[in-house]
Amino acid sequence: MKQSMTFIPTLREVPADADIKSHQLLLRAGYMRQNASGIYSYLPLASIVLKKIEQIVREEMNRAGSAELLMPALQQSELWQESGRWYTYGPELMRMKDRHSREFALGATHEEVITSLVRDEVKSYKRLPLNLYQIQSKFRDEKRPRFGLLRGREFIMKDAYSFHASFESLDEVYEKMFQAYSNVFSRCGLNYRAVIADSGAMGGKDTHEFMVLSDVGEDTIAYSDTSSYAANVEMAPVITQYEKSSEEQKELVKTETPDQRTIDEVAQYLNVEKEKLIKSLVFKVDEKFVMVLARGDHEINDIKIKNLYGASVVELATPEETKQAAGVLPGFVGPVGADSKIDIIADHAVQSVVNGVCGAGEENYHYTGVNLDRDATVSQYADLRFIEEGDASPDGEGTIQFAKGIEVGHVFKLGTRYSEAMNATFLDENGRAQPMIMGCYGIGVSRTLAAIVEQYNDDKGIVWPAAVAPFQVHLITANAKQDAQSSLGEKLYAELLEAGFEVLYDDRIERAGVKFADSDLIGIPVRIVVGKQAEDGIVEVKERKTGEGMDVSLTDLHETISRLLQK
Amino acid sequence: MKQSMTFIPTLREVPADADIKSHQLLLRAGYMRQNASGIYSYLPLASIVLKKIEQIVREEMNRAGSAELLMPALQQSELWQESGRWYTYGPELMRMKDRHSREFALGATHEEVITSLVRDEVKSYKRLPLNLYQIQSKFRDEKRPRFGLLRGREFIMKDAYSFHASFESLDEVYEKMFQAYSNVFSRCGLNYRAVIADSGAMGGKDTHEFMVLSDVGEDTIAYSDTSSYAANVEMAPVITQYEKSSEEQKELVKTETPDQRTIDEVAQYLNVEKEKLIKSLVFKVDEKFVMVLARGDHEINDIKIKNLYGASVVELATPEETKQAAGVLPGFVGPVGADSKIDIIADHAVQSVVNGVCGAGEENYHYTGVNLDRDATVSQYADLRFIEEGDASPDGEGTIQFAKGIEVGHVFKLGTRYSEAMNATFLDENGRAQPMIMGCYGIGVSRTLAAIVEQYNDDKGIVWPAAVAPFQVHLITANAKQDAQSSLGEKLYAELLEAGFEVLYDDRIERAGVKFADSDLIGIPVRIVVGKQAEDGIVEVKERKTGEGMDVSLTDLHETISRLLQK
Repeated sequence: MKQSMTFIPTLREVPADADIKSHQLLLRAGYMRQNASGIYSYLPLASIVLKKIEQIVREEMNRAGSAELLMPALQQSELWQESGRWYTYGPELMRMKDRHSREFALGATHEEVITSLVRDEVKSYKRLPLNLYQIQSKFRDEKRPRFGLLRGREFIMKDAYSFHASFESLDEVYEKMFQAYSNVFSRCGLNYRAVIADSGAMGGKDTHEFMVLSDVGEDTIAYSDTSSYAANVEMAPVITQYEKSSEEQKELVKTETPDQRTIDEVAQYLNVEKEKLIKSLVFKVDEKFVMVLARGDHEINDIKIKNLYGASVVELATPEETKQAAGVLPGFVGPVGADSKIDIIADHAVQSVVNGVCGAGEENYHYTGVNLDRDATVSQYADLRFIEEGDASPDGEGTIQFAKGIEVGHVFKLGTRYSEAMNATFLDENGRAQPMIMGCYGIGVSRTLAAIVEQYNDDKGIVWPAAVAPFQVHLITANAKQDAQSSLGEKLYAELLEAGFEVLYDDRIERAGVKFADSDLIGIPVRIVVGKQAEDGIVEVKERKTGEGMDVSLTDLHETISRLLQK
Repeated sequence: MKQSMTFIPTLREVPADADIKSHQLLLRAGYMRQNASGIYSYLPLASIVLKKIEQIVREEMNRAGSAELLMPALQQSELWQESGRWYTYGPELMRMKDRHSREFALGATHEEVITSLVRDEVKSYKRLPLNLYQIQSKFRDEKRPRFGLLRGREFIMKDAYSFHASFESLDEVYEKMFQAYSNVFSRCGLNYRAVIADSGAMGGKDTHEFMVLSDVGEDTIAYSDTSSYAANVEMAPVITQYEKSSEEQKELVKTETPDQRTIDEVAQYLNVEKEKLIKSLVFKVDEKFVMVLARGDHEINDIKIKNLYGASVVELATPEETKQAAGVLPGFVGPVGADSKIDIIADHAVQSVVNGVCGAGEENYHYTGVNLDRDATVSQYADLRFIEEGDASPDGEGTIQFAKGIEVGHVFKLGTRYSEAMNATFLDENGRAQPMIMGCYGIGVSRTLAAIVEQYNDDKGIVWPAAVAPFQVHLITANAKQDAQSSLGEKLYAELLEAGFEVLYDDRIERAGVKFADSDLIGIPVRIVVGKQAEDGIVEVKERKTGEGMDVSLTDLHETISRLLQK
């Protein structure tokens, strides 16, 4: 493509409102422009990259036995009422009315539409399993759109849905999708991890997120330093075994701790290690109050409380609620002498605390010499804390480390959540109606583009991996006003296209410095500069990744390019 | 693709609400399902055909120098307010509010978005011309969605926009787009005409519609039986020269014509030919009343009135308005003795009427012996009637015939309509700010799919032209339970894929009759049936188009398929 004929509006300055690399570089290198908060136009270069990512996704999905279709963005509210999500999805679901005042949702996801489609057509186990996908713009009215393409309101997604007659069949397809996703992200050149994830509000069981490792990621991944184990930090179980010290039990003493509320304050005031403190917090578990204990140096993971109780909602109680439930404001709550009506649970680590410290249930007082088996009633010890760096990996191999990740894919066993709500049944081999068993599988296509830029850039601009680069070769005439250069440029452009290379040809009449700076920003893997040696049949070939340049004669040109592209 | 793994829900019955062939067949052959009025899901077969059409469009657009981009569906109302269309577009523009109550339009078209995008980035004539396109779902809330994909509310469109520093440059690109469109529709196998079209509400000048000839088309095309001339019937000028008969002028006589209002009634009652009658109708031209005369056998074309006056709105006056303006209800209106305040214009043909008949401006009376140059004041004779079959072609070659057409494409010189309203200017060579000159170019991608089906079907189903068929070969095992057949089927499937053919493989355990009927419906060009002669290495090859079948040995199979696909 001739650069004079396309639209690559580069910027020299870093846009003020762009705070991460991919956002800055995609704007600066002329790949996109913002239309409204969280809404972007993909300019020609981004359009090509998106098409390449989509093509990789298509190839891997097709290979895995999924068939492409295309469902509408406009979705009748009636379907969302059937699933119940019309009421629970919240303001992220964009809604509108047509000219007849019928309500529609703008597709944020397509479980309802596909379930209704398959429900209406598939009646027998003989037609299952079925695995269907689409690539499409999705709409979610994020409260705080941010980070450019990482959290937008209109974005491109590949979503797939599978339907099964048995859980074994779901497991098989889940495995295939997992593999397909691994292939997709590997082919995109990404450094990623498949992590065990929270099933969130969807109520499924097995679920993995594909996380691109990046400091700008909004999720924390706990991974093993030696095995392939990786999980969302919220989901990783703690398998540490704690040993009780042999220290002799001391007497329980109530001590004045005026205005000392936090773990740090109390530890310092009483001059004890944080490990000796018993953190006591009140949570509201659905409608019931629960006192949760953890060691002072640990953080309580409310998802684990939720799972322990099988609850729908777990929230930290407000100060007022805490006072109501535990008789004192947060900071002085403790299990010793607590109202027997409140359930007390504790993290495993707490069981090993000898002569600990906890709130006395009375303003400005703590107990020291606390030994829970003697001084309080804990109904249950369980794994209730967040895993930490240095903990043993839950798979028993290696030690946990943390990384930040950008979620680019998600595979998910839905089960019968939608088929039961929407009455999507099939007749099994015995002629009995059964709800279809479902899986769903998403890839953020536009987010993947941004994630690649996060991992592939340097201080001059983007550095595309060859598989998803908008072009393979950036051909530049240093001085397009010079006949020798411009005629060799035109000739090479035609020849390289003819040879099957994807070429962006900078034929613009601009200063060479401008062209080179633009080229660095744009990030095409191989640059060919037609300069002063044009008349001698010599051009400069430069690899974007290494910055290494070399003079190459025209006879060696194709071979040189091919070699650099395969590196 | 294996048929057992995809989703092709065929129907034996013609769906009740589908009234045209493409709508019926796309539903029956399992290509699509309706989600809501005018809103469809494209199932896997349609998804493949759409991708093929899109690929043809991309290739031709790229070849013509247009660069692809992708703009959002969510468009800020502020942009539409700038162009003024927020107020004039009407209920077809779907509107919604985000969580912060900001108003958005759902992209019905993208003139506003692209004009704002280019306005913000392009400042100099050096960066022009620019030609950008996208392929995307569009939203228009049709009052009466109908005819399946021909008039839906969410549909796929290719829209392109060009920006120029001069009208000459616009003319050049318009010509290229015209050629690209011709290539696209030819490659899709369509019988179409490029017709001169009304510029509609957009205010442009040169405009052509690409019309696929079809009886279900909603537009009438007037075309020459010998030249390439074709125009929307509303736009075709009449070039007929009328000769006045040498008949002697008779006396003007007022004649009672009780309750005789229509041309037919009056002609019969007075026993005169319709050509002798002078049809007199009152129109409201913007806010002014005009009496328009035409020969009794001709129809008045209000677009020609509009163009003559350069008016915004032309409507037939209501009976009340007619009485107010012409002193009598419709049926007895006439130019003789009319109020001098009302402007009277007449079609050229009226000038040749000698001793005609017209309303007397008085209930239940007509004049006979009317000779306008003697009896009335006509301010202007002009071309005011619709062209008719049998008229001379406006290009002077051949005779006009009519056909119905489906509009699948539209190329349009917008001029400065949007750039002026939205202040999209560039600096010309003299450093002066000028509004950019624009063109826009649309192709209805999903509509094109339906138009192909309208032209390619028979009583058994769809008959795809090879270039856009979802697959090239439909491989069918007549009895998948027979080992010889199913193993040869599997083997051929692998071999044909290996050889590069696109194959749909019906591996389902179904009766042969069901498979053949489905195959006819689906319409893949070449069918291969693995049947009883499987063990002898012989299969049946059948051409969908002709229905001709032949036994082919495996050694000749690839060659036979290639030959049939090239026919």
